[in-house]
Amino acid sequence: MIKILKEKTDQAAAILREKNIDMWITFVRESSNIKDPSLDLIFNGNVTWESAFIFSNDGEKFALAGSMEVENIEQLEIYNVEGYLKSIKENFRNYIQKKSPKTVALNFSKNSNLADGLTHGMFLIIKDYLSGLIKDENIVSAEDIISSLRGRKSETELQLIKDSVYETENILAEVSAFIKPGKSEIEIAEFIKKKVHSNNLEFAWDEDHCPAVFTGPNASSAHSGPTNKVIEKGHLVNIDFGIKKNNYCADLQRTWYVLKDNEDKAPDEVLKGFEIIRDAIQLVADNLKPGVQGCAMDDIARNFITSKGYEEYPHGLGHQVGRKVHDGGCGLLPRWERYGNTPYLFVEKDQVYTIEPRLKVNGYGTSTLEEMVIVNEHGCEFLSTPQKELWLIK
Amino acid sequence: MIKILKEKTDQAAAILREKNIDMWITFVRESSNIKDPSLDLIFNGNVTWESAFIFSNDGEKFALAGSMEVENIEQLEIYNVEGYLKSIKENFRNYIQKKSPKTVALNFSKNSNLADGLTHGMFLIIKDYLSGLIKDENIVSAEDIISSLRGRKSETELQLIKDSVYETENILAEVSAFIKPGKSEIEIAEFIKKKVHSNNLEFAWDEDHCPAVFTGPNASSAHSGPTNKVIEKGHLVNIDFGIKKNNYCADLQRTWYVLKDNEDKAPDEVLKGFEIIRDAIQLVADNLKPGVQGCAMDDIARNFITSKGYEEYPHGLGHQVGRKVHDGGCGLLPRWERYGNTPYLFVEKDQVYTIEPRLKVNGYGTSTLEEMVIVNEHGCEFLSTPQKELWLIK
Repeated sequence: MIKILKEKTDQAAAILREKNIDMWITFVRESSNIKDPSLDLIFNGNVTWESAFIFSNDGEKFALAGSMEVENIEQLEIYNVEGYLKSIKENFRNYIQKKSPKTVALNFSKNSNLADGLTHGMFLIIKDYLSGLIKDENIVSAEDIISSLRGRKSETELQLIKDSVYETENILAEVSAFIKPGKSEIEIAEFIKKKVHSNNLEFAWDEDHCPAVFTGPNASSAHSGPTNKVIEKGHLVNIDFGIKKNNYCADLQRTWYVLKDNEDKAPDEVLKGFEIIRDAIQLVADNLKPGVQGCAMDDIARNFITSKGYEEYPHGLGHQVGRKVHDGGCGLLPRWERYGNTPYLFVEKDQVYTIEPRLKVNGYGTSTLEEMVIVNEHGCEFLSTPQKELWLIK
Repeated sequence: MIKILKEKTDQAAAILREKNIDMWITFVRESSNIKDPSLDLIFNGNVTWESAFIFSNDGEKFALAGSMEVENIEQLEIYNVEGYLKSIKENFRNYIQKKSPKTVALNFSKNSNLADGLTHGMFLIIKDYLSGLIKDENIVSAEDIISSLRGRKSETELQLIKDSVYETENILAEVSAFIKPGKSEIEIAEFIKKKVHSNNLEFAWDEDHCPAVFTGPNASSAHSGPTNKVIEKGHLVNIDFGIKKNNYCADLQRTWYVLKDNEDKAPDEVLKGFEIIRDAIQLVADNLKPGVQGCAMDDIARNFITSKGYEEYPHGLGHQVGRKVHDGGCGLLPRWERYGNTPYLFVEKDQVYTIEPRLKVNGYGTSTLEEMVIVNEHGCEFLSTPQKELWLIK
């Protein structure tokens, strides 16, 4: 999709000017072995030898690559390209000397995994290449650039995410008719997997727990794969599922209740558990807008749920979605050390988030929903069709 | 394939003892976004939160992971596992204190991309976690461990590589009958891709140049994708292709000559170009054995080819093959800066290498072959069936 590449590299150039950063370098090698997640935003392939993709505040987009791979990059008509044969060092230092940036932003970050694509060995190498030209303290993290670049979905990106939500919802609608007492979690998962394959789609995350299927009061924790556990009457059933299509992901969760023989509606405590999750999501959606802090959104849902007497959910409220199912920098996350600074970042326009609180209904299972929203100028709108009623299985 | 995981983690424990290393830590997070290539050798999935897979010289295999992912690791029955909720730091420091290693090996390397899976941000994090417990100078590169662990193929791994070579050779045999004057490089590539799909195989490297197809005297350089260029009589045609099956790769190159109307064999200079490549490979195979330096093998082929009056090939002679098509540490490589120290490493038993010199036959195209060998106790043996004659297209 060269169209997206042009959109994203133009965005990158604009973000450098906006944030007043002299130079951003994505420094990579053998990217089919380990790939800096930022590379996909600015190049549509892999490199073998040490390669540098360099954005400068004068607007220049420059690439330096092994001679055999120059053609692949030139074809894009995005970068000025230079090739090298034996070592990148001389061309690289010449270019840096010519542009003479004061600071250089590189792809490392303690906080954001997606901004942390530069390996430590490559960091040592580029630090050596920059020695005498850039002071150590002027080699800075590119996490701000990458956070905005990944987060702000371009027009084409948003359309592709909408397509993936649509495909995911279609499959979830089909599985609704398939869920029956006596079927195992694995059987439900297999039904979904077949649909993914026959529709020529990919899974948004690892197939061993995409979909994740949970039934009943003693189901495994989130991020576990489906088991041989069998659906019984009186169970809450959850599915966490998303497809990837044209490199863009969706990520949704839905909840069903399996009626007992004497029931024509869910028991009150089950309904209450469902409605609290549904309402928590709406409460967050009513407050989510540019400029709010991610952790403030997690607070809203977490406090709402605990104020109703339930345990807090053992994970964050929501994450961005895009090329990666866990995308972007800012997250709707609690202030837990394992999340670094990402809970403290500010929500921006054009970011796509999940909202996915959960709670446990004792004796029945888990109530959990996951919806997707896009942040617009003054608030947000749903990309998914929110589940407003508990779905009943007879 | 839990069998391979058990073989590899047992190998890892033995390598620590052999190399007298106190502790090896693979420290990872959100590995579906960016994956340390070493993780696949010791775990069969992805982790979300900061996780540590720790091997100690007393033989213990220990894993520390986010609480929701503990089950996935426990299932393997390989690691003692501990879970955490809010931060890994305390459990991690307690464990390090208990084991009190003098040195700790981490996955960073200037030389070997496959041993360089620790990102710089994660390096800064673990350095902080280790502060006061391990001196900075005792945090060392794990490249020796990883080089041996990736390089030395276990019994099951070798069998899977043989399977992949077999599948690749079958497809190359089929394409031989399909190559005709008038067909474009892209048409040849499409024929091969269909076979890969219909045989339920994967590509060993990026589909945009797997297979790579080159025809005639002015073909693109290696690592470029196939073009609309049409095969003509009097062309040398090359294909660089390999499949991946059960996570293990093959990588082969073959060369054909398209006869002109008045020819019943290739012209002398074409034949000579082919035979020199064929003989260069045999010369290397005759010398490749445990203990030789990679660069010495490149010397043999490079000197042989230039001594016959041809230009030297603009790349290395060969690389290891395994889970990655460019696998392992040591390579049969020239002493070029871009290869770091990998040309200077020593060949070990049970490593799998390609041998792939090339030369240009002016006016006709490129002569290039790529064979695969496994190093045994006293030498090496071919895993591929070497192409001994130039294949002719009528």
